[in-house]
Amino acid sequence: VISPAAADLLGVLAYSELCAFERNAADAAGAPSLVDKVELARLSRHEHDHFEQLCVYLSSQGIEPLSALEPFVVAWDTFHSNMAPRDWLEGLIKTYVGDGIAADFYREVSAYLDTDTAALINEVVSDSQRSEYMTSRLREAIAEDPKVAGRLALWGRRLMGEMISQATLVAGSRPALQEMFTEQADQVEGLINRLTVEHSRRMDALGLAS
Amino acid sequence: VISPAAADLLGVLAYSELCAFERNAADAAGAPSLVDKVELARLSRHEHDHFEQLCVYLSSQGIEPLSALEPFVVAWDTFHSNMAPRDWLEGLIKTYVGDGIAADFYREVSAYLDTDTAALINEVVSDSQRSEYMTSRLREAIAEDPKVAGRLALWGRRLMGEMISQATLVAGSRPALQEMFTEQADQVEGLINRLTVEHSRRMDALGLAS
Repeated sequence: VISPAAADLLGVLAYSELCAFERNAADAAGAPSLVDKVELARLSRHEHDHFEQLCVYLSSQGIEPLSALEPFVVAWDTFHSNMAPRDWLEGLIKTYVGDGIAADFYREVSAYLDTDTAALINEVVSDSQRSEYMTSRLREAIAEDPKVAGRLALWGRRLMGEMISQATLVAGSRPALQEMFTEQADQVEGLINRLTVEHSRRMDALGLAS
Repeated sequence: VISPAAADLLGVLAYSELCAFERNAADAAGAPSLVDKVELARLSRHEHDHFEQLCVYLSSQGIEPLSALEPFVVAWDTFHSNMAPRDWLEGLIKTYVGDGIAADFYREVSAYLDTDTAALINEVVSDSQRSEYMTSRLREAIAEDPKVAGRLALWGRRLMGEMISQATLVAGSRPALQEMFTEQADQVEGLINRLTVEHSRRMDALGLAS
């Protein structure tokens, strides 16, 4: 069976995929065109696929999926209500930045997990980053209205900061995660640095300051 | 190739499935418990499956899916913004009532279509009605707080009325649909009566006046 830390990471990832599904569906509902709506709806459904994959895996390990998610509901819902996008573009940036940071984070920490769990987590987070649509749509919107760049850059910075402090809070609230990160204490500073560098690279790719 | 009326019906059904996906995802986001959230998210994802099935079929008939949906976007969006649920239970009733009426409607009109299109439409709308969850969850909520019954009954009546008038408007705006319904003019009154009877039966099943 998987370790308590692995169960926690699968639980928080599954809940964040469920939230991403809801958020991208809301972005689909507010999309400025039918093409955008259909793209975002497909992205959203993809997040739901990940959620189901993670639930199936948790069940196969004898863990009731909802009980694995439950500890992360309040923290995650608070994060989303504090960081509600003010418009459609902020919604896209939230997905782009959030999926990127999450993918980097889970890829790093999966090094501390058993190989099956690590493989599933890597598969799920890589797939989340697959969307060409997101990058090209954001570039297009910024090119159309260069004034939005400053606002979106600021929003990206806030998201990065909030996600790091959120991850720290969540890790501190779960004994198994706290223990894992304590064991890897000499890695944590390096991890945060690498997340920051990768985040900057993604913001650069949109022509946004980070 | 399929008739223009069949293409219109597939287009409006596909767009309504896409809207149902968005709406149920919003209901998932506002769900009072994690169990409800997960159920509604699955329902939502199911609607997206239907949307994709219809798009694949339209493509296989040489029809670009988005062009088939496009004529129905404004009417459908207007309906949804006029009939926005005020709370979570009104959202559930909207899905329950709307899926029911839509299923009855499409099953009836599929009798005027080619067999392949009719089979697909029947499959999609039957599957939408599959949810045991919706009926039992609504019964439970009404039993917990009998005062909501009057408000939900009224809401169900409004939905029924709006859907009939919406369907009439949409049919009148598309030459192929108008022609089809004119040819079947002696059936239309009977159709509306049957929709009303079935709607009453579904409201009765919840213990709500219709």
